[in-house]
Amino acid sequence: MPTIIDGKKISAEIRQEVKTEVSEIKARGMEPHLAVIIVGSDPGSQVYVRNKHKACEEAGIRSTVIEMPETTTQEQLLAQVEKLNQDKTVHGILVQSPVPKGLSEEKAFESIHPLKDVDCFHPQNVGLLMLGRPRFLPATPAGVIELLVRYNIKISGQYVVIVGRSNIVGKPLAGMLAQKSERGNATVTVCHTGTKGLAYYTKQADIVIAAAGRPGLITGDMLNSNCTVIDVGTNRIPDATKKSGYSLVGDVDFESASKVAANISPVPGGVGLMTIAMLLKNCVMATKLQS
Amino acid sequence: MPTIIDGKKISAEIRQEVKTEVSEIKARGMEPHLAVIIVGSDPGSQVYVRNKHKACEEAGIRSTVIEMPETTTQEQLLAQVEKLNQDKTVHGILVQSPVPKGLSEEKAFESIHPLKDVDCFHPQNVGLLMLGRPRFLPATPAGVIELLVRYNIKISGQYVVIVGRSNIVGKPLAGMLAQKSERGNATVTVCHTGTKGLAYYTKQADIVIAAAGRPGLITGDMLNSNCTVIDVGTNRIPDATKKSGYSLVGDVDFESASKVAANISPVPGGVGLMTIAMLLKNCVMATKLQS
Repeated sequence: MPTIIDGKKISAEIRQEVKTEVSEIKARGMEPHLAVIIVGSDPGSQVYVRNKHKACEEAGIRSTVIEMPETTTQEQLLAQVEKLNQDKTVHGILVQSPVPKGLSEEKAFESIHPLKDVDCFHPQNVGLLMLGRPRFLPATPAGVIELLVRYNIKISGQYVVIVGRSNIVGKPLAGMLAQKSERGNATVTVCHTGTKGLAYYTKQADIVIAAAGRPGLITGDMLNSNCTVIDVGTNRIPDATKKSGYSLVGDVDFESASKVAANISPVPGGVGLMTIAMLLKNCVMATKLQS
Repeated sequence: MPTIIDGKKISAEIRQEVKTEVSEIKARGMEPHLAVIIVGSDPGSQVYVRNKHKACEEAGIRSTVIEMPETTTQEQLLAQVEKLNQDKTVHGILVQSPVPKGLSEEKAFESIHPLKDVDCFHPQNVGLLMLGRPRFLPATPAGVIELLVRYNIKISGQYVVIVGRSNIVGKPLAGMLAQKSERGNATVTVCHTGTKGLAYYTKQADIVIAAAGRPGLITGDMLNSNCTVIDVGTNRIPDATKKSGYSLVGDVDFESASKVAANISPVPGGVGLMTIAMLLKNCVMATKLQS
């Protein structure tokens, strides 16, 4: 039986650590404050924003949610961001993705002051990350690495195969893991939809990170028995037995993969919970950067 | 016998294309203008700067070389960059690397206006590149890709192994080649000094790109017979038979590698010449961005 990498347990540890740090910051007279802008009424986004708000409150971080209507113009969105940029009581700003059609998410991300960019989506912060001088770490990739580190899974000198090349997971994670640093120094392959013979790569890997957004993409026969599998997939599939009408599944076929892998993170209960925990860490970091 | 990828021929083609484009720009009343700052008297840097100056002149690009003494302070260097940022007749600025000890190269690069950053070293431009929305392409990685494209060597769907993870070659090149784009879409592995069993990776590769800065690192027995080898190495080794006292060698042992590979780029006569040609292209791009 593999070791189950427990995102619930680790994320709770981190949230506790953040809470302690927030208390210390408050004792010095500052109050970390995250502002989240949500435009429109996407139900998934509303759940995410609610979860972030709740996590902030539990950690002692002040959280302001700004709801803007579906009809918001680009100018109105940018003006709202600018108002928060100017607000000295706000340390972190994020614009919940996706924004309604017709609005540019890129322009919104770029309008956030780089020191308040707790999602690490601003090109300047992406660049600093790639150059090995990160200001913030993007939450999901940082959560993946945190899980590996806290389970004492070696990264340096290991062979990591990342499946997926998104701007928020695959690409930054590849850069972070290949970096000459304490938590990097791995040999890293980025695979994607254009890769021929995916199993050839995953079979060799010490660590497989699935972040392609395709349910069941990674199966047990594509793995070796010493490997660690981290599942970043968060796919909603219809499920009539659930009250919500859907189930959340990863990119890994847990049933077959868990019979082969040495360590595996489940969905739900894995990386998803880490993302919010790492966001909280970035809020603390942003507060320090602006003090 | 392999096909020799001729950087001299391809770079001459590109320089001719740039020359034509510069004429058209001049006919519209603009004069592309590159300003190069060189601090101190490193002999290698002086050769590079001289070559860039000559290449600009041949292409019809105005070139200003600003020589600053070894004793230049950080403030003086930044003030000089700022002067060029403000100068509307200057479209491209570069600070020749390395700068003397005690000066921060990073701060100098970051002080260049992103629209004039023809080296693509500014964090904002590095970020845009990684996000798949490049403003400029870094010259050496772009030169590698241009060689592959002009020799009709397929990139999409192929397996590329990059040896080296520098900020100016390995890392941006990995991002560019993995990108979902016409000149990308490869499966990419980044290997480096921390990689165990380098030959295992290179042997599988359709394209091997050597950019580690270690003479003779890649030998014929590490390659397969269908592969293309691009040598980015520019190592100086002592050579008493040369007037300069040194020879320029790559990271690839050409003697053994050329007996195995299907296509191979030599050093000198390969990527090195492409770097300056691609820099000229960036000067034209910068002029357009500011017009």
